[in-house]
Amino acid sequence: MRKLRHQRGEIACPESHSQLKNLELTAVGGSDVHVKMLAAPINPSDINMIQGNYGFLPKLPAIGGNEGVGQVVAVGSSVTRVKPGDWVILAHSGLGTWRTEAVFSEEALIRVPSDIPLQTAATLSVNPCTAYRMLMDFEQLQPGDSVIQNASNSGVGQAVIQIAAALGLRTINVVRDRPDIHRLTDRLKNLGAEYVITEEELRKLELKNFFKDVPRPRLALNCVGGKSSTELLRHLAPGGTMVTYGGMAKQPVIASVSLFIFKDVKLRGFWLSQWKNDHGTDHFKELILTLCHLVHQGKLTAPTCSEVPLQDYNHALETAMHPFTSSKQIFIM
Amino acid sequence: MRKLRHQRGEIACPESHSQLKNLELTAVGGSDVHVKMLAAPINPSDINMIQGNYGFLPKLPAIGGNEGVGQVVAVGSSVTRVKPGDWVILAHSGLGTWRTEAVFSEEALIRVPSDIPLQTAATLSVNPCTAYRMLMDFEQLQPGDSVIQNASNSGVGQAVIQIAAALGLRTINVVRDRPDIHRLTDRLKNLGAEYVITEEELRKLELKNFFKDVPRPRLALNCVGGKSSTELLRHLAPGGTMVTYGGMAKQPVIASVSLFIFKDVKLRGFWLSQWKNDHGTDHFKELILTLCHLVHQGKLTAPTCSEVPLQDYNHALETAMHPFTSSKQIFIM
Repeated sequence: MRKLRHQRGEIACPESHSQLKNLELTAVGGSDVHVKMLAAPINPSDINMIQGNYGFLPKLPAIGGNEGVGQVVAVGSSVTRVKPGDWVILAHSGLGTWRTEAVFSEEALIRVPSDIPLQTAATLSVNPCTAYRMLMDFEQLQPGDSVIQNASNSGVGQAVIQIAAALGLRTINVVRDRPDIHRLTDRLKNLGAEYVITEEELRKLELKNFFKDVPRPRLALNCVGGKSSTELLRHLAPGGTMVTYGGMAKQPVIASVSLFIFKDVKLRGFWLSQWKNDHGTDHFKELILTLCHLVHQGKLTAPTCSEVPLQDYNHALETAMHPFTSSKQIFIM
Repeated sequence: MRKLRHQRGEIACPESHSQLKNLELTAVGGSDVHVKMLAAPINPSDINMIQGNYGFLPKLPAIGGNEGVGQVVAVGSSVTRVKPGDWVILAHSGLGTWRTEAVFSEEALIRVPSDIPLQTAATLSVNPCTAYRMLMDFEQLQPGDSVIQNASNSGVGQAVIQIAAALGLRTINVVRDRPDIHRLTDRLKNLGAEYVITEEELRKLELKNFFKDVPRPRLALNCVGGKSSTELLRHLAPGGTMVTYGGMAKQPVIASVSLFIFKDVKLRGFWLSQWKNDHGTDHFKELILTLCHLVHQGKLTAPTCSEVPLQDYNHALETAMHPFTSSKQIFIM
């Protein structure tokens, strides 16, 4: 793949229509930047977009992928903020990152330090940003407070564990039971998870004792919906907030009326694209800087990734859609 | 009833255990106020409390009723804020208002003007307070903005219609279909309702055109739950809030994951008792003053009431629990 130039993966719905294509690069104009893509992951939201289940959908045919890291090859005459050799990530979704090279406008790029690990740089702009904003923007949490989440092994889940630990927050991490549960538990605890429990354990009554050792969470992060979110709500502190950012179970959130009235529970949602629209690129750049700082401090790493060449896109997409896949598929160009 | 002194209704769960009893009044101490009750309504929350389905439950045996208006008969030596002849309502729930006379501490009483209608004074401290706070505290609404609610014929519903109209807000009022629907529609429109539609009409597709004439509501007030709340959510503007304050359908609130993520819909609850705990009596007194001002301006009246003597408590409780009862039962002592 590295030898091919002017090439991109062109992706259409359904995913079996995805193709790898050679395309001419557009000319590099005054404010344009020629970027050689280095690495780009497959996120769950990329799959949703291909399947047509997303808040916005690109015009087809479209280039797949919404995040990744590249290296600047050449810049137009008016470009001032990046130079050849710099590492860059994308400020916006929908630009297509599953390709070897691209011409982006300068304003679409954010420079990141080239001394951070490649996988971390390639996966910095979606999942850790979502995790950070959800931890900061809904409840004013103090060190020692707890946060409960489901899908704790997802990209966002792993970022939540690490960022929460860096903020002094205690995480209660719910995962689905599986044959290698102890390996998963150990891995998440190594990232900073205080508790790792299965959905089944969460349903057990003994958990009443559990909250003698850790304060009831005022923030719950829900990527699943259905019964799993009902369980999160059951353990939420009065006045607490559950933020929904995904719906892996394809079931709605169900909440009793008394939970709203007598427990003052708040149900909210989070979508990073909307946050970026509302807050603008400068705030997004600040957020990326904050996360790079955590990376430099050794407090934030990429989730477990499987590196795959762009040619193997069909297999990689299939793997990404497979339940219990513990590893993020990441294209290395 | 007026001739009996030292008498109170004593209420226990189930409601068939309610009894009318003669009891000795306690002595009037330095900070106490002897009050002759004038009128006290049966609210849905009183019924929930009797049935044991409420956020707090009094120790049994207990005196029923949580609001009402009385006239001061005598005051203790240290009482400064009320004098004999004043009309007073109660600052707190759980004090028991379904009785002819009582001794309350001064700090439990709020003076109201005695020139407002008796039914209005007796029903001021629960439903209109709930309506006012829900309209003010969740979304920053501007004149011309719209609000959607279900159970629009309830005590809170009628207060929402009137207070919203006073604030320049346009209300979309959902009611259950019934034989005399036109009479109900006329009555609510006379109170200030801009639109009155049935649950069935709300489900119809033609409503897409409806929102050409009125902006989509950013606030939905839900007293029902179940399918009715699903319909409210369907019509809520992106970023809007649904506040649940009742659950007449005895069904939970169900919301799709995409509603949270892509429409940024917020689900909240409201309970006046909690608001009073959080904000204190001074803020509650301010709220009562504001509402009295609306009453004096002719912008707020009591909901349709049926006056009943205290002896008929069993029939009144039964009527209050009957579906489609359009009139609030109010004890006149």
